[in-house]
Amino acid sequence: MEVKLIDHTGDDAGIVKAARVSTVGRESLESTEKRGLIRYLVREKHLSTLEHNSMTFFIEAPIFVAREFMRHRTMSFNETSGRYKELSDHFYYPPEDRPLVQKGKAADYDLYPGSADQKFTVSIHTKQAYYAAWTAYKNMLDAGIAREVARNVLPVGIYTQFYATTNLRNLLQFLDLRTADDALWEIRYIANEMKQLAEPLFPIAMEAWNEYR
Amino acid sequence: MEVKLIDHTGDDAGIVKAARVSTVGRESLESTEKRGLIRYLVREKHLSTLEHNSMTFFIEAPIFVAREFMRHRTMSFNETSGRYKELSDHFYYPPEDRPLVQKGKAADYDLYPGSADQKFTVSIHTKQAYYAAWTAYKNMLDAGIAREVARNVLPVGIYTQFYATTNLRNLLQFLDLRTADDALWEIRYIANEMKQLAEPLFPIAMEAWNEYR
Amino acid sequence: MEVKLIDHTGDDAGIVKAARVSTVGRESLESTEKRGLIRYLVREKHLSTLEHNSMTFFIEAPIFVAREFMRHRTMSFNETSGRYKELSDHFYYPPEDRPLVQKGKAADYDLYPGSADQKFTVSIHTKQAYYAAWTAYKNMLDAGIAREVARNVLPVGIYTQFYATTNLRNLLQFLDLRTADDALWEIRYIANEMKQLAEPLFPIAMEAWNEYR
Amino acid sequence: MEVKLIDHTGDDAGIVKAARVSTVGRESLESTEKRGLIRYLVREKHLSTLEHNSMTFFIEAPIFVAREFMRHRTMSFNETSGRYKELSDHFYYPPEDRPLVQKGKAADYDLYPGSADQKFTVSIHTKQAYYAAWTAYKNMLDAGIAREVARNVLPVGIYTQFYATTNLRNLLQFLDLRTADDALWEIRYIANEMKQLAEPLFPIAMEAWNEYR
Repeated sequence: MEVKLIDHTGDDAGIVKAARVSTVGRESLESTEKRGLIRYLVREKHLSTLEHNSMTFFIEAPIFVAREFMRHRTMSFNETSGRYKELSDHFYYPPEDRPLVQKGKAADYDLYPGSADQKFTVSIHTKQAYYAAWTAYKNMLDAGIAREVARNVLPVGIYTQFYATTNLRNLLQFLDLRTADDALWEIRYIANEMKQLAEPLFPIAMEAWNEYR
Repeated sequence: MEVKLIDHTGDDAGIVKAARVSTVGRESLESTEKRGLIRYLVREKHLSTLEHNSMTFFIEAPIFVAREFMRHRTMSFNETSGRYKELSDHFYYPPEDRPLVQKGKAADYDLYPGSADQKFTVSIHTKQAYYAAWTAYKNMLDAGIAREVARNVLPVGIYTQFYATTNLRNLLQFLDLRTADDALWEIRYIANEMKQLAEPLFPIAMEAWNEYR
Repeated sequence: MEVKLIDHTGDDAGIVKAARVSTVGRESLESTEKRGLIRYLVREKHLSTLEHNSMTFFIEAPIFVAREFMRHRTMSFNETSGRYKELSDHFYYPPEDRPLVQKGKAADYDLYPGSADQKFTVSIHTKQAYYAAWTAYKNMLDAGIAREVARNVLPVGIYTQFYATTNLRNLLQFLDLRTADDALWEIRYIANEMKQLAEPLFPIAMEAWNEYR
Repeated sequence: MEVKLIDHTGDDAGIVKAARVSTVGRESLESTEKRGLIRYLVREKHLSTLEHNSMTFFIEAPIFVAREFMRHRTMSFNETSGRYKELSDHFYYPPEDRPLVQKGKAADYDLYPGSADQKFTVSIHTKQAYYAAWTAYKNMLDAGIAREVARNVLPVGIYTQFYATTNLRNLLQFLDLRTADDALWEIRYIANEMKQLAEPLFPIAMEAWNEYR
């Protein structure tokens, strides 16, 4: 999985400008960053002031992560198309530290690492299923079948690529949900990468959010 | 694939009320449907007047259709979770009339039915890949693996279920894109079902849209 | 000021259906209201489940209230137009219990009733200004001036009418902000009316929100 | 009225990247601007590719313009507050070339310059009404009345200041509506200023939009 920040604009000072227009009007154009004010805005959730900026990320992640990601309706997306592009045989395998076993209720459970046997089980069955899917996909393409039909067999563990553009307000809403303990392990990984990329851009606002969330 | 309308409110008269508030204010509360006005609003794209209503659909479709569907950020969604629910072995196979072969450029191609051989190819490879995926999934679950890990192998052709709520304006935007000739065959099927369900609810507006689109 | 609920759909059971689709898929269609689940969803802020419903309000309020109202970008609006309609001489005067005096900082102050003298001051100056504005407006209209030019002199205290359509999730977000102690007195009045109209429609969800907000 | 571009990011090449991710995936990161592709995207309304960028404008305009502006729900706004700031006596007067007379139906009329008499009528009545409003406002403030009560008398022709942040897709939607012949004269002025500021940032896309709109 990979996250790159490819473009951005705005900074802590822009948050101050947006906030101060309400109290000083046109003079806000001269505003510079003010630590106390930014912390106050984040703490009291005056979040519209965090919208006058932009970050564009390039993300490579399995489809099952992209699916959760694209539920965030305030973001802008463009993604690799299984209709327009022959996909690559690049599949997701849970890394060593990804817990494999769940205990608890359907929507409220804890995760545990899993035994060596369970790790082997995941590894072998995942590989076999991915292999069968890829073989079927390639065979269909070789027989002249349209990509948009052949791809039906591809697993949600195959990698996809997309651009996601958002502002700081909506990024923080995303991070609130997707860095939480009960978020899917894989999207938590992506969210934490995005968080680290955003921190140097808005150091005061991000510090305040970390503290008050 | 299945589409059910499970709830709705609003009608052609509501469109007139919303339009007439701008010209008559509070008197608009008494407005009833006016064919000419509704046709004018649709033709001239005064579309905010189509937003004071609501339709909730229940949809059962493969994940690759849900993926396109959920790119519509103005709609409300809740969907079956592969983390919270053990999925069912219910997979999508292209029906007899689904064209299987594409000719043309990557993002601009035409589709053709395909030969009997090609139909057989799709059928056999799709079945084999689905079977391998399902077997791997069940084996992992039997070994105590978490649903959210085991499901990585499931194909985008597996069925999912979701509720989608929207208003007439956003439905028409959806239908503009998803009933078009170059829309994915499967989402065009879903979109046409939705269109038929919406027509009796807003007969004048839907007729006007059909005519002027 | 006036708020009427003119249309709605959805109920507490719909919230349960939307929540349960994630854990039981298609079976959710049979779901009925479940008090414990709804309270859990509201408390834990699983708010997408509150979106599959709709309420349309007709609101008559001064322009300065409509201005705050229409900052809520998730709602649908249509409003009386000062370009298309000659407006009515219906102006807002602060009622007896509206506090008139502020003490504190620019964006963080408390309000007090004000003396009898201050009440008189508000009453007399407001009346004079409204009268001057209305006279100028009518004189310009009588001289054949376009409504969209003549209306420039009308005060933000003149009444306007609009339809606002939203779902329960976005209504609660509105109520969170607009029934708060530091909300503008007049929009708090409107918000409380809306709250009372919504309570019988979603009794369990509204009770939970009242408790957990 | 004044429009300043105070911040932006993104360019024509970013549109190409966003478009090409669907056909080439990760390779799109290397894309540079391609005139033909951008023109195709704009003409065929593949508009999601225009969302990966941002422009922040500072705008000074009368309240009646801000009211129309803030109906665009895809934009981000922060504005001078009549609650938090004592407003300035800066009012809008129609300039020499602003047509003053309307002929036709309520929502479908043409505008004409107006006679010298009519110009005088507008000028004198507007000045008188503004003066009365300002006097009442100041008198109330002097009597210790809260800004949020005193401002009720201020006209929609008083100037306000706000930041508006949007992306190219939503800017074009704004320009489609607000540079049209039947748009309010004053917002058309603002929209044309924004258009001129955006043209050097996205020369190919803006040229294509001008041609195909």
